[in-house]
This record gives sequence, C-alpha cells and structure tokens, in this order.
Amino acid sequence: MPSPGSTPAQPGRRPRGRPGHDRAAVLRRAIALFNVQGYDATSVSDLAADLGVTKSAVYHHFASKEDILAAALDEALTELDALVAAAQAASDRSARERLEETVVAAVGILVEHRAAVTLLLRVRGNSAVEQAALARRRHIDAALAALVVEAVDEGDVRADVPAEVISRLVFGMVNSLTDWYEPGGRSGPAALAAAVRGVLFEGLGARSRVS
Amino acid sequence: MPSPGSTPAQPGRRPRGRPGHDRAAVLRRAIALFNVQGYDATSVSDLAADLGVTKSAVYHHFASKEDILAAALDEALTELDALVAAAQAASDRSARERLEETVVAAVGILVEHRAAVTLLLRVRGNSAVEQAALARRRHIDAALAALVVEAVDEGDVRADVPAEVISRLVFGMVNSLTDWYEPGGRSGPAALAAAVRGVLFEGLGARSRVS
Repeated sequence: MPSPGSTPAQPGRRPRGRPGHDRAAVLRRAIALFNVQGYDATSVSDLAADLGVTKSAVYHHFASKEDILAAALDEALTELDALVAAAQAASDRSARERLEETVVAAVGILVEHRAAVTLLLRVRGNSAVEQAALARRRHIDAALAALVVEAVDEGDVRADVPAEVISRLVFGMVNSLTDWYEPGGRSGPAALAAAVRGVLFEGLGARSRVS
Repeated sequence: MPSPGSTPAQPGRRPRGRPGHDRAAVLRRAIALFNVQGYDATSVSDLAADLGVTKSAVYHHFASKEDILAAALDEALTELDALVAAAQAASDRSARERLEETVVAAVGILVEHRAAVTLLLRVRGNSAVEQAALARRRHIDAALAALVVEAVDEGDVRADVPAEVISRLVFGMVNSLTDWYEPGGRSGPAALAAAVRGVLFEGLGARSRVS
C-alpha cells in the first residue's frame, strides 16, 4: 500500500522516471525472482526488499503482482509476435528461407530476452493473465507450425516427419537455450544462431561426409 | 505421522505391497502433483488427500516428502545413467553410431518416464536431494558431451560448431519432448525417435535436396 505522501497506484496510468528504481529495473528484478523462486512464492514485499525500496515504490509502477507478471510475459510475447508477423509478411520469399530467418531471429530473442522467455515457457495457466499468455503463445506456435507446413509443401523441408513434429523439435531446440545459454560465454549470439541454423537445416554430419 | 496401529515409517526399510496404494502408485501420483503445482507447494497431506488415503499410508512407503522427491528423481537418473553406461561400453563402434543410438534411447526414456524426467529438468538445487540430483545430471551431461567430442574427433560430426554447443542443442531438442509429447498422439515413440534422429543427423532439408 502507498505510504503517506506517495502517489497511490492507479491501474492503467502510472507516472514513470521516479527517482530510485525505474519501471524497467523493477520488472527486470521481478522476472529474476519469479524465475528463481517461483511466481507464487514471490510477494511484492519480497521484491521490494530485494530492491531495497518500499512496497509503495513498487506499486508506483505496477498495480499488483499480477500486473508485473503480465508486463513480463508481454515483453516476451511482443517480441515473438513481431517474429511471426515478419515471417508472414515476407511471403514473396520461400517458406524455407523465412523459416531459417525465423529460427535465427528466435535465437536472438531468446538471448536478449532470456529471463522473460524463461518465465513465459514456465507458464501453466494458473490465472487469467497466464491463460491469456498461453493463448498468445498458442497463436505463435500455430503460425510457426504453418510456416513449416508451407516449407514442406514447397518441397524444401523433409516430408517424412509430420510438419507439426518438425515445428516442435525446431522450437524445442531453440527454446532449450533458456536452460543453458550463458551470456558472455564462448559462443556469442550470432555464432549461436548460425550454429542452430546449421545443425537444424544441414544436420550434425561432418560437412565433408554429408550424403 | 503414523496413526495408531499402523507400521511407523522406517527410513531405509519399508514393507511393500500394502493393501490400497502400492509404493509405485504413490510415487506416480506424487510426481504428477509436484509437476502440476510445484514441489514446494505440495504437502504430504495434499498427496494423501489426492490418493484418498491417510498420511500414514503415504509414510508407510516414504519417510518424508523429500524421500519421495529423491525416489522420483532417481527414477529418471537411473535410466539416464544406464543410457550413458551403454554408450560408453560399446567403444568398439564409432562415436557417431553410439551418439545416434543414445539419442534414440533418450527419446524412449523421455516418453516412458516423461513425468519423472520433467521433474528432474525443473530441479534448481534448493535442497541436498536436489543438489545430489543436479550433480548426477551434470555427470550425465558431461558424458554425453564427451561422446559428441569423440564423434567430432572421428570426423563424423561437424566441427564448425563447438562440441559443447552441439551437445546442448541435441539434448535440448530431446528434452523438449517433456513439454509437448502427448502419449497416445499421432506419433508413437518409435516414429518420434526416428524423426528426432533424422532431423538431427540429416537436417531438415527435403531428402532430394540435401546437398
């Protein structure tokens, strides 16, 4: 609850740029806590204590804990929506080309927004906010699966595995980055994207021995 | 706590085959609850209520909630340990062959022990039991990565991507099955294993167009 003298939380319209922690910093720390100790186990008091601010400072930026979760999931979903829109827009190019570019771009999103995507991938639908996020995720998954179907239909992706399974395997590999990618590790984002694209589209075989 | 007349829980030696729920059934239901609502949020009372038995019936089989978690993680780890042992034992065959067989066998384990593997993949090291499981998992990951290194050294797996990254991508794809595989779905375990092997080792390209 707002302390005396602070601006009460007003859903839908909150001032920004307050001294101390800005909205983005609060969101970043909240996502980290949700990922480490779980959304249910994290209270706004925990977040405020972690940030070294009062609860009212948190409520200055967000109306509720669920509002923070919604913003966190929106960060990942907005990027993924844009990815899908780009893949669908460039319909003058082959589906295979667009699929390869989508994989590369998805790796970039997972590296840059790793924490938010990790949170999204763990959502199980326990609230209205989570259910809305799952619905958006299903829409994205369906669009990516449709792109694989197109590429199979155009003869550029193997037809001996159901397109739906291919789509799951491709984005299963991409999503696995949230489990193991370490920022600042030996493979930078560009090398990583090239590796994922190469392994997926060319296979693991040594180049000289690919039959 | 055991109710009057029941056999008290004795760590290390517990009778089996008690009327009602056997140990395996209790474990199965516990894993399902841990996966759905989280380990921390699940109490032995929840589990007993879910099974329609008393807490003492649960304690008849397991000394504590942590004992149940240990058994659940052990189910997955025992299978994965055997997978690694098999890959290491057959050293008369090429590393590439053994890697392909390991991928196929891993898909089988993930399909058959999906719930236990899902639980294992979510472990974050919040207790001694979880830390022991993470240590065993690291050992397995290291052995699989060593197999990839061998296959690269033998010239049968591409050398333009670090072997460690290849290993992460391969088992990232395999592990993703825990998120989307539906038992009884259109692709049975054998077809799924063949699909994963094909996509990973040959790539996504249409067969007629593989260069």
